[in-house]
Amino acid sequence: MSHAAHDPPLETDVAVIGAGPVGLFAVFQLGLLGLSAQVIDALPHVGGQPAALYADKPIYDIPAVPVCSGQALIDALMAQIAPFAPPLHLGHLVEQLQRQPDGRLLLQTQRGLRLLARAVFIAAGVGAFVPRRLKLAGLEAFEPRQLFHHAPDDAQLAGQRVVVVGGGEPALAQAIRLATLAAGGPARVTLLHRRDGFQADPATEAAVRALRAAGRLGFVAGQVTGFEQAGGCLTALLVMGPDGATTPLALDRLLVQQGLSPRLGPVADWQLALERKQLVVDTARFQTSAPGIFAIGDINTYPGKKKLILCGFHEATLAAWGARAHIHPRTDEPPLEYTTSSTRLQRLLAGAGAAGGQAG
Amino acid sequence: MSHAAHDPPLETDVAVIGAGPVGLFAVFQLGLLGLSAQVIDALPHVGGQPAALYADKPIYDIPAVPVCSGQALIDALMAQIAPFAPPLHLGHLVEQLQRQPDGRLLLQTQRGLRLLARAVFIAAGVGAFVPRRLKLAGLEAFEPRQLFHHAPDDAQLAGQRVVVVGGGEPALAQAIRLATLAAGGPARVTLLHRRDGFQADPATEAAVRALRAAGRLGFVAGQVTGFEQAGGCLTALLVMGPDGATTPLALDRLLVQQGLSPRLGPVADWQLALERKQLVVDTARFQTSAPGIFAIGDINTYPGKKKLILCGFHEATLAAWGARAHIHPRTDEPPLEYTTSSTRLQRLLAGAGAAGGQAG
Repeated sequence: MSHAAHDPPLETDVAVIGAGPVGLFAVFQLGLLGLSAQVIDALPHVGGQPAALYADKPIYDIPAVPVCSGQALIDALMAQIAPFAPPLHLGHLVEQLQRQPDGRLLLQTQRGLRLLARAVFIAAGVGAFVPRRLKLAGLEAFEPRQLFHHAPDDAQLAGQRVVVVGGGEPALAQAIRLATLAAGGPARVTLLHRRDGFQADPATEAAVRALRAAGRLGFVAGQVTGFEQAGGCLTALLVMGPDGATTPLALDRLLVQQGLSPRLGPVADWQLALERKQLVVDTARFQTSAPGIFAIGDINTYPGKKKLILCGFHEATLAAWGARAHIHPRTDEPPLEYTTSSTRLQRLLAGAGAAGGQAG
Repeated sequence: MSHAAHDPPLETDVAVIGAGPVGLFAVFQLGLLGLSAQVIDALPHVGGQPAALYADKPIYDIPAVPVCSGQALIDALMAQIAPFAPPLHLGHLVEQLQRQPDGRLLLQTQRGLRLLARAVFIAAGVGAFVPRRLKLAGLEAFEPRQLFHHAPDDAQLAGQRVVVVGGGEPALAQAIRLATLAAGGPARVTLLHRRDGFQADPATEAAVRALRAAGRLGFVAGQVTGFEQAGGCLTALLVMGPDGATTPLALDRLLVQQGLSPRLGPVADWQLALERKQLVVDTARFQTSAPGIFAIGDINTYPGKKKLILCGFHEATLAAWGARAHIHPRTDEPPLEYTTSSTRLQRLLAGAGAAGGQAG
């Protein structure tokens, strides 16, 4: 997005914060009711926890889906909402939420995207998933030219000395990938982790060992204690090794891959009623203590709440009806239409991915 | 089932009344919590409305299933609950529900099946789907030897004069099938409908016309006004034709296929709180006004209620937790286990149909 803070804000019926399964399904239910939606997520991809934490692992408790992977679940939901083509604002952390004089809600993200919505769905799960950072004061100044928390385009690393920080599967997979690029790869790739031992698949660890033995991947064990710069550029990390000695590790590009950490973040500052860090909602509309702000999925709480995706689907559905009533308070609630019998809904839905997939 | 009223009743943790999608999914959630379930349905097959009313029609609003037919939805749910192998009592209309001195609930069906349960889930949709009958006093005496509302084994019709009553797709499809059996079919098949015009697919109507023209299928238009019997056997229906004259239509077997009609039936007599013929439930456990009796799916009502299958899935899930608390009141609620991370649940589920189907 090249949308800047001084542009007029984007407008939509409903801003959905969180592109996990529940936020995505909310787009579908809003669409059935004729409401537009735009989706914002801190991660650079859709899918929330299922995509970020268990993309390849089986899920057994989605109703009528005996088993699917986290990624397959998200793919299916993306196909389901395709008819509504919702704008997706990825890699955006919502910072501010302000009620406007006309009752609408203005959201602003860390990167300056502004979205003016008649209602807001907070579907942020356990919070925004943000990358774990190296805790070094001042290092953030080198982002996004030299410091990355999500792998940049390969072109930005071509011919450079790249250091990958981390000891889990994502870090090792990136190190392997960069060390084995066919052409246009980095000049040198070094993996940096606090110790010579990893939390990754045995096959991944074996690949790292083989590349290290072949001299194609460097490895340094130690704690990062500082950095060096010259002329406004990051030039080295200071690494304290197991022997207690500190050595500068020269680099041009730094890719930190220490996993993701959920962060409730600004949601906690929006004056909404909370109970043990969960947003309190009613069970008729799943509205928070603020009119027009709904909370669905793992981030909400109510009597009987279970943190299950299938419960979030129900919550998203009733919240969509709640949003409709909030946005169109002077019109009667329309009758519930069924996709099986409503030709209007069928025309809406059959156009997209739906047509090819009919089972049975 | 050859279970008779004088046998000791079958015992289970939860008796689920209704084998529609919501009742079936309840079996899954109960199973995850270690509770056994047995399912009762008035129809001779599982699947409730999706299977009975729109088996071949597309459904677009099951979350993460962009499109599937009613029957495919039921097939997927049956695969999902297969690990729990719930006993299914089909073709049983529950007549009585009585609290026992020990707090358990005794169900008895019209056909004498008795089931003793610690909790009951009423997942009966708009009521039991019962076949529309011919309204002739005394005709029921010929059931099930001569009078049928669901097609019997072909052997019971072999060499007989069969009359099929009805003008919709089910009646016509049965008439065509019986009139074209390769061997061992009826001696004669006659379709009886109030007028010479049908509510069926054009292809089905064309097949009926062709069989009538070929003399392989008889047709009589008129209102059934009575019947004749001899020696305890039904021998003819009295049919008043368009000209007002009444003629006996001789027969040996009568197959009434006038469609299904929902009937709330005995549920209305169980002293449970009702609101516009819906069972009133709380939204934490989906329990009715009677402890241990839960209501899920289209038959219940609460603030915000939408009659959607996906909402019923949520209701079934919270009701399962409610049933667990009701059945084991002195134990703490166990932590919520996720199928993605719990090896116990994975062992339970991976054994059955699940293993082959992983997507993604």
